[in-house]
Amino acid sequence: MKDRIKRLIDFANENGLDGILIAKSSNVFYFTGASPLAGGYLLIRGDEAILYVPELEYEMAKEESFLPVEKFKKIDDFYSTLKGIKTLGVEGSMTLSMINALREKADVKDFKVVDDAIKELRIIKTKEEIEIIERACEIADRAVMAAIEDVTEGKKERDIAAKVEYVMKMNGAEKPAFETIIASGHRSALPHGVASDKRIEKGDLVVMDLGALYRHYNSDITRTIVVGSPNEKQREIYEIVLEAQRKAIEAVRPGMKAKELDSVARNIIAEYGYGEYFIHSLGHGVGLEIHEWPRISQHDETVLREGMVITIEPGIYMPKFGGVRIEDTVLVTKNGGRRLTKTERELI
Amino acid sequence: MKDRIKRLIDFANENGLDGILIAKSSNVFYFTGASPLAGGYLLIRGDEAILYVPELEYEMAKEESFLPVEKFKKIDDFYSTLKGIKTLGVEGSMTLSMINALREKADVKDFKVVDDAIKELRIIKTKEEIEIIERACEIADRAVMAAIEDVTEGKKERDIAAKVEYVMKMNGAEKPAFETIIASGHRSALPHGVASDKRIEKGDLVVMDLGALYRHYNSDITRTIVVGSPNEKQREIYEIVLEAQRKAIEAVRPGMKAKELDSVARNIIAEYGYGEYFIHSLGHGVGLEIHEWPRISQHDETVLREGMVITIEPGIYMPKFGGVRIEDTVLVTKNGGRRLTKTERELI
Repeated sequence: MKDRIKRLIDFANENGLDGILIAKSSNVFYFTGASPLAGGYLLIRGDEAILYVPELEYEMAKEESFLPVEKFKKIDDFYSTLKGIKTLGVEGSMTLSMINALREKADVKDFKVVDDAIKELRIIKTKEEIEIIERACEIADRAVMAAIEDVTEGKKERDIAAKVEYVMKMNGAEKPAFETIIASGHRSALPHGVASDKRIEKGDLVVMDLGALYRHYNSDITRTIVVGSPNEKQREIYEIVLEAQRKAIEAVRPGMKAKELDSVARNIIAEYGYGEYFIHSLGHGVGLEIHEWPRISQHDETVLREGMVITIEPGIYMPKFGGVRIEDTVLVTKNGGRRLTKTERELI
Repeated sequence: MKDRIKRLIDFANENGLDGILIAKSSNVFYFTGASPLAGGYLLIRGDEAILYVPELEYEMAKEESFLPVEKFKKIDDFYSTLKGIKTLGVEGSMTLSMINALREKADVKDFKVVDDAIKELRIIKTKEEIEIIERACEIADRAVMAAIEDVTEGKKERDIAAKVEYVMKMNGAEKPAFETIIASGHRSALPHGVASDKRIEKGDLVVMDLGALYRHYNSDITRTIVVGSPNEKQREIYEIVLEAQRKAIEAVRPGMKAKELDSVARNIIAEYGYGEYFIHSLGHGVGLEIHEWPRISQHDETVLREGMVITIEPGIYMPKFGGVRIEDTVLVTKNGGRRLTKTERELI
């Protein structure tokens, strides 16, 4: 934790910043260990780093934070503490309202985005972080197994999602990493088909995409099954997606670019003639946020390095017919990709 | 929905804006009916209103949206569509990253915050919205009853939260409105003590604060109980909080200021000598967001009007000893406050 703060202090000095203000909850947790629900602000100024929280979060933040904590009654009282700072480092997620307030109440003149410095730290996971993510992945494995068992003709997608989320929570998850996707039949062609009141029908493709938040870290897994026997077309697209997912995981190497990895899966799907139905990027980084760096997409030049955690999740979505997606959370090791979610993939 | 869009178009014309860009998910839903998980952007320009979504959200957004939908492959392609707009109305939640991108890729010069226009619409709930919130409150009532039944010596806070959230989901909730708070014993003194691995002990005060998200609208309720027989001090603070909560609800009137309502409860608690332990505001608006306008606090001059939905949630938090909070979601009617959450309050 001290190394992380030191990096921010050095960054401020190297870039002529009078201070750095961190407000995004994932970053506040990363640098302080605290997670005040009503918000908290880490202010770096000179060699000093202090976490400011509203009064109602004070007792809890003191228990959790590695850094000194101070409380404020009104947000304006906090803004006043920034007086004297002319050039402030902030996150790209800083809101226009807060920028306007800091200009007005604290006379801050310039705002410089410091996201790259934070990304450089967070994108490589430490041993301790990887252990927590592995545990989050185990919980996701149990939850997806529960979903697979629970899918039966006549059941509502929403009730399967309720079961899934209960299993996660009983296994120690704080909450689902995102709204659980249980998308059956024609809805399986919607990449983000969160569980609805639709009932499962015989012959449906069912895409189940879920993840667990465990000790602030996320996991992400997708499996697809057919209710009853798959038809020829369902089997065909399932096998293409599975081949693309396997080969992409096998292709993972430190030193390759994120966009090259995206191409591995994209080219396989295109060769089979389904390129136009793979309508999203291959994956994304996973950590304190469910979607973080790198993006495994045609637009990301990031070079993969040991300790990155990413998803690999090719899919084929045919409007009206249905869709298939297969996804694992994968650790980049010096020897290649290692799956952290481990549920069987031969499901059709 | 058309009236809402018309209000934005008029606002743009009245204020010399070349366009308005809406990006916050609650507002995108409010004005379009769509809720694209990967984000969506409503652009108002002249008399035209179009929802732009990433390709993977296109099919679903077309089903949901009242407005025309267009898709983009890369976010930069969307930014390009804003070319020619010099003065853009945006939300205060607009991020610095997006502002920088719009300056660079679309040559937008000025950004004006339009939050007040949106607030004026959203702060008064329509009949349809109130019906949905009532249903969200019924789900919260069932969930809090399940929590009360589930609290027993030896049980983990987290397992009670798992049960609560399962009950919500099985009753039609999309998800919890926020991370369920089950805070027992010394943890009950933490206003935001989300469920932990702590086990319930005999004699514990247990604060249960939860809400359901149902068809995009939130509910919010808190109840506090004691495991076994309350001691004198527990009973004393419970009765003070209950009196403050009752009298605040009875005091609700269209025409009074939010801060006056806050004072009703604050004065009662102060008169009993516990003023320093009531460390947050009395409540907040509830709707598409769990915390919205008005804030029922000493700093909010908003005049209450019929159709506002607010929480009333006084609390007393004594570090180490424990805490009590009692909360209902309340509708402002012309005759006063009407509780939408209805679970019994005489629990100690």
